[in-house]
Amino acid sequence: MTAPSPSALAPGATIGILGGGQLGRMLAMAAARMGFHVQIFCPEKNSPAFQVVKTYFTAAYEDETALTEFAKNCDVITYEFENVPAQTVAFLKTITPVLPDIHALQVSQDRLAEREFLASCNIAVAPYASISSIEEAQDALQKVGAPSVLKACRFGYDGKGQAVLQPGEDISDAWNSLGQVPAILEAFIPFELEISVLIARSQTGEMVPYEPGENKHRNHILDTTTIPANISKNVRNDAIEVAKNIAETLNYVGMLAVEMFICKGPDHNALYVNEIAPRVHNSGHWTQNACTIDHFEQHIRAITGWPLGDPTHHSNAVMKNLIADDVHQWKEYAARPNHSLHLYGKTDVRPARKMGHVNIISPKNSNESK
Amino acid sequence: MTAPSPSALAPGATIGILGGGQLGRMLAMAAARMGFHVQIFCPEKNSPAFQVVKTYFTAAYEDETALTEFAKNCDVITYEFENVPAQTVAFLKTITPVLPDIHALQVSQDRLAEREFLASCNIAVAPYASISSIEEAQDALQKVGAPSVLKACRFGYDGKGQAVLQPGEDISDAWNSLGQVPAILEAFIPFELEISVLIARSQTGEMVPYEPGENKHRNHILDTTTIPANISKNVRNDAIEVAKNIAETLNYVGMLAVEMFICKGPDHNALYVNEIAPRVHNSGHWTQNACTIDHFEQHIRAITGWPLGDPTHHSNAVMKNLIADDVHQWKEYAARPNHSLHLYGKTDVRPARKMGHVNIISPKNSNESK
Repeated sequence: MTAPSPSALAPGATIGILGGGQLGRMLAMAAARMGFHVQIFCPEKNSPAFQVVKTYFTAAYEDETALTEFAKNCDVITYEFENVPAQTVAFLKTITPVLPDIHALQVSQDRLAEREFLASCNIAVAPYASISSIEEAQDALQKVGAPSVLKACRFGYDGKGQAVLQPGEDISDAWNSLGQVPAILEAFIPFELEISVLIARSQTGEMVPYEPGENKHRNHILDTTTIPANISKNVRNDAIEVAKNIAETLNYVGMLAVEMFICKGPDHNALYVNEIAPRVHNSGHWTQNACTIDHFEQHIRAITGWPLGDPTHHSNAVMKNLIADDVHQWKEYAARPNHSLHLYGKTDVRPARKMGHVNIISPKNSNESK
Repeated sequence: MTAPSPSALAPGATIGILGGGQLGRMLAMAAARMGFHVQIFCPEKNSPAFQVVKTYFTAAYEDETALTEFAKNCDVITYEFENVPAQTVAFLKTITPVLPDIHALQVSQDRLAEREFLASCNIAVAPYASISSIEEAQDALQKVGAPSVLKACRFGYDGKGQAVLQPGEDISDAWNSLGQVPAILEAFIPFELEISVLIARSQTGEMVPYEPGENKHRNHILDTTTIPANISKNVRNDAIEVAKNIAETLNYVGMLAVEMFICKGPDHNALYVNEIAPRVHNSGHWTQNACTIDHFEQHIRAITGWPLGDPTHHSNAVMKNLIADDVHQWKEYAARPNHSLHLYGKTDVRPARKMGHVNIISPKNSNESK
């Protein structure tokens, strides 16, 4: 599809991954398929990704001795999630290149920074106000109104660090429930649907978007992603342009996920960016069974300077997450045609824990591009 | 597709694999995707499969202490190739179930036993005679004639342990060149094409064949497998029936590969079985990108008692092996659309060494079943 970087890493090079969850695990397997060696660094003992590599480090993200040991044998380092401390990345990059760059990490780990960045790209987001004191909370409520959503600036995921504010409710209570951490109050967008655009950007600036997928949530956690999304060709193209704008402005390298809300109107469709994630993303797992090159391999291609892969999907797909007890249905899913099960090797089933996913593929309709 | 075995192993169980080459490596990755833990046992240090598992054993196949240590934490054991000593399997199965069964191993590790077995199934093989002395060699030549192929009974693969005998050549020389080991002399079959049928059989006796693939060789090593094979619907169905017959007669569990020669005639097509392999097989690698469930996962499903997966291919495919220096073209292959590269993590490029393969997929034609 695209030209390789002149400094592309050859098979046999070593890739370091920060984070040992399912994303690190599937990144490691994709990298192994490409002939790379992989090392995982993760503070949690028995991390799922440790099961699929020869070399792993169990140490704190602040342990500079362990980080040095880890980095010195890596040719490039990446991360599976955006809550890796920026200081860890700043330290590692003095030893070995880290991609995506620390700037993307900093923008996406803080909801306020993220929104300010998006505004600088002229990308629509829901109206919001930032809050770091009880006075600001009251001002924010005046400005944004209700219904609205109070979101902690940092460490929020899967609905954690969020509180919905209904008209008449007291914002002080909501902010206290979040622990009085810096937050934003965001207007509730009455969206028809949420989509994700997964886009790869190479070291030479080429960009390759996957087909946008339509996301549905259950208990604030992604439940399914469906390909193709039920959107018009115009919305599809606009969404891809928005993702390109973000990747380009960040001078990004790797897979980037952009979640967007679509509000269908009589005359036009409004599109708001909800969240960006500088990494492979749950809403891209469908690519494992519906594309020749999945988003895990694509991320590894981007950070190693390989040519990016063709993102065309040969089949339509539904990705369904297996959350907590859902995983006990593995035998039922395994027995169904066109279902591909991906389990994460996690032993403890805990509420809201992502245990695996299943990709259900079907022939691509000829009339899909609307 | 099929019912799971009542004693199916749940995700989290541990699978042991004998052999640490690329087949063990890709089996391990498929098992990990299904949520299993994997242990590899291989005498060679730095085996490719060691790179993708947490636990591996480097010890001789005769080291019963190491075998015991390996087996006691496994719930089921399998092997990546048929040249594992039968004694190793006999020892291991006193501790942990080993699948496919030792009988399949014994039949396939000896060309004479294999041919006698096939004859007992009423399956056509090329005319042959067994040789264990110079006198028998002369008798064999009388009986089989030339051109013919002298094949060592054991440890032959990729053209090793074989010698072609042209009319007028001295069979003593040929047999000496093989080291006077037990051998068979086999009539040369003037076949039009070679196909492989990959078939899975479950613990409950269900059988699931993949679409037969057409094999082409280069320097006696598999070069490409193409799906679908250029054969009639009748030949296709006959070939699948032959594979079913073999799997059924062996009471086989796992993936079985059956290589067959097709001689196209004016009135009918003759089909001769060339070789059976009680394992995943190079000619099945195309399933990784053209099927929802590939032959590696299918093998793990069979030996763990999972329901077998749907073998339908959603795309046509060509699998091309990357032998020795071919691997240096990785960057070129990586840049092509619809090409999926699979590299084995081998550091030393040696002549005839399988370094990786590339799967090239294309849309399935509606008229493919002839």
